[in-house]
Amino acid sequence: MAGDPDVRMRGFRERTSVNDVLRLLDARLRPMVSEAVPLLEVGGRVLGRDAVASVDVPGFHRAAMDGYALVAEETFGASPENPRPFRVVGDSMPGRAPEARVAPGDCVRIMTGAPIPEGADAVVPVEDTELEGELVRVRAAVTPGRHVGRAGEDVAKGSVLFSAGRRLRPQDVGALASAGFNRVFVVRQPRVAIVVAGNELLAAGAQPTGHRIADANSPMLIELVRRDGGIPLTGPIVKDEPAALREALIVSLREADCVLAAGGSSVGREDHVPALVRELGELPVHGVAMRPSSPAGVGFVGGKPVFLLPGNPVSCLCAYDFFAGRAIRRMAGRHPGWPHTTVRMPLARKIVSELGRTDYVRVRIEGGRVLPLAIRGASILTSTVRAHGFVVVDAEAEGHPEGALVDVRLY
Amino acid sequence: MAGDPDVRMRGFRERTSVNDVLRLLDARLRPMVSEAVPLLEVGGRVLGRDAVASVDVPGFHRAAMDGYALVAEETFGASPENPRPFRVVGDSMPGRAPEARVAPGDCVRIMTGAPIPEGADAVVPVEDTELEGELVRVRAAVTPGRHVGRAGEDVAKGSVLFSAGRRLRPQDVGALASAGFNRVFVVRQPRVAIVVAGNELLAAGAQPTGHRIADANSPMLIELVRRDGGIPLTGPIVKDEPAALREALIVSLREADCVLAAGGSSVGREDHVPALVRELGELPVHGVAMRPSSPAGVGFVGGKPVFLLPGNPVSCLCAYDFFAGRAIRRMAGRHPGWPHTTVRMPLARKIVSELGRTDYVRVRIEGGRVLPLAIRGASILTSTVRAHGFVVVDAEAEGHPEGALVDVRLY
Repeated sequence: MAGDPDVRMRGFRERTSVNDVLRLLDARLRPMVSEAVPLLEVGGRVLGRDAVASVDVPGFHRAAMDGYALVAEETFGASPENPRPFRVVGDSMPGRAPEARVAPGDCVRIMTGAPIPEGADAVVPVEDTELEGELVRVRAAVTPGRHVGRAGEDVAKGSVLFSAGRRLRPQDVGALASAGFNRVFVVRQPRVAIVVAGNELLAAGAQPTGHRIADANSPMLIELVRRDGGIPLTGPIVKDEPAALREALIVSLREADCVLAAGGSSVGREDHVPALVRELGELPVHGVAMRPSSPAGVGFVGGKPVFLLPGNPVSCLCAYDFFAGRAIRRMAGRHPGWPHTTVRMPLARKIVSELGRTDYVRVRIEGGRVLPLAIRGASILTSTVRAHGFVVVDAEAEGHPEGALVDVRLY
Repeated sequence: MAGDPDVRMRGFRERTSVNDVLRLLDARLRPMVSEAVPLLEVGGRVLGRDAVASVDVPGFHRAAMDGYALVAEETFGASPENPRPFRVVGDSMPGRAPEARVAPGDCVRIMTGAPIPEGADAVVPVEDTELEGELVRVRAAVTPGRHVGRAGEDVAKGSVLFSAGRRLRPQDVGALASAGFNRVFVVRQPRVAIVVAGNELLAAGAQPTGHRIADANSPMLIELVRRDGGIPLTGPIVKDEPAALREALIVSLREADCVLAAGGSSVGREDHVPALVRELGELPVHGVAMRPSSPAGVGFVGGKPVFLLPGNPVSCLCAYDFFAGRAIRRMAGRHPGWPHTTVRMPLARKIVSELGRTDYVRVRIEGGRVLPLAIRGASILTSTVRAHGFVVVDAEAEGHPEGALVDVRLY
């Protein structure tokens, strides 16, 4: 559907398939530009440029054991019965230049991590020696290079330590530190504005009273955006009125890279948001062949994606997970696929679905089998709380029989 | 070994088994006390007390569809051929009291989420109706309760919404919001002081020069502590001198709930940290039957755990993952087991291990098979960077043959 301006939604009569929405997102969205971020804050971020080492790590040949640095050849033939004597001419300690160089018959006492003195080419471990005054008796031969960590053995100067696109793990940040990185170019985190509309809504944190309910979508979306590498931006609840919604959308599009508009996107309800997105930009998707979340929509204003998420919290979660989450991960430079851990298990009870419609089925795992939860409405958020995860039934399938192996994506 | 004061390490001659260290940690450590945290900051945190709902959600009976609220019994027998007429006496919109009550023959136009008016017990969807002036013709019967979301159907007042110990997912935070929670009691995050000692070390972010190297352990440990639910605290690099180390340990123990002391814990090197921990408290473990990380140690000062992590970054990562990470997860109220995603795959090449010793083998996954990385030293941090994960070979095993299925814990 990407690039095909004829494939548009007209009302809800013509629903876009889930796969067409995904293709549209993949075609239209790119990772954000890079920014230089201090080393200690780049964990979990995605490299925006190749990280090329400007130094060798280590920067010098160093001892890999505590012992004596010497010329390996002079130990050849050494054994417990026939130890070889060496004169200890100094120490080499970590962080300092060695006290002495090694001439024939000499050795330098050395600690793990300390620089190998000039003239030496191996380290005899302390266990294979015996000290007598200024002499050390070496009871085992070593080969040249033995117990020596060579300059550049961990990271070679000029080498690509990590390629652009890598999501940095704890040890990766350590490796960047060892190579002297101070700031690292990582993909900018998309700023994601969360716009929640509904006259019945009280801000999250308020006690629901009368006929009003507390907004459950913002707190959930904030966490989901964080999970996917975005920076959530929130504002007050917006009234279901065109002027207020227009203002909220325009401010959000100015401040953010992506907008999530929850509520007010169905066709039956006060339906201002889709019209506003069409007015400000384009709305190629409104109505998706899926359950729940069929009223979901995807628009673009000035290249920034705007997601219409249904106000019902289960539909909101589902539409976020299918579309907005993927978009945010892509913009954050991450792998766009599902971020959930997946387990494959047999169904305890069949799942029935409609051909041409994608279903998001909340499930529990009990006794190694997958139990679909029979839930009436998309308004019951606690159904996703009781669930261990969900199963996606593709549009091509009419469901799965009892016993079929399905992939459960764990919440 | 827990509770048995005789089982102690004497030098490195007697190495504690990995399982004994784990048992000691499990016996000695408990989750931190709870603290009240604002709703929008509790995602990923662990509930410290049961969350009991003080209100019904929803707080009133509400429409699950757009349509007309009426008395179900009055629709019985309705069909497209034989529609039943109802008088529209008002609207019910979300967030407001209904405009009218429903008397016999009446109905109220209602939107999804709006309160059911007094007298009505069902909603006929708008699709099953036809409007003619102030009359609506209902073309299908509904049963009592149809398309009505009952008060408390999502969350019942007085019910336990979540039990203590639950790690809060995005939708859980939404559910807490819907039940009017403003602050939530969650397990306090342990503050974890990272003390790095070594005369050869420059602070992370510095360019290594001369015989000095940049500290790779702090940046890695900071990320690992964050991953496991702790709050990392860092200070400057400490000199390998008793007075400086003593001061750093005492300050850390005052400010933090747990201390990670990296470097300076071997027996061959300047060996001040173990002596200091013994002096300030106790050091029941020093030396573990594992590879790498055999110089690792575990102490307690005033009930706070102190982990001696080897300075070599691979050993540091391994000792952290086996012991400190588990302790921090436990203190944070999380499941103490390995946090990594695990995949089970056949070995491409045998792994040889020593009976009685636990091995931490870095591996790559290539073509669906597990390839152990042949790496010499624990000083090569990039070996963990190239690895996709690791395989743990238990002390009871002498390794695994080629083709054996092993669990790979993915970094």
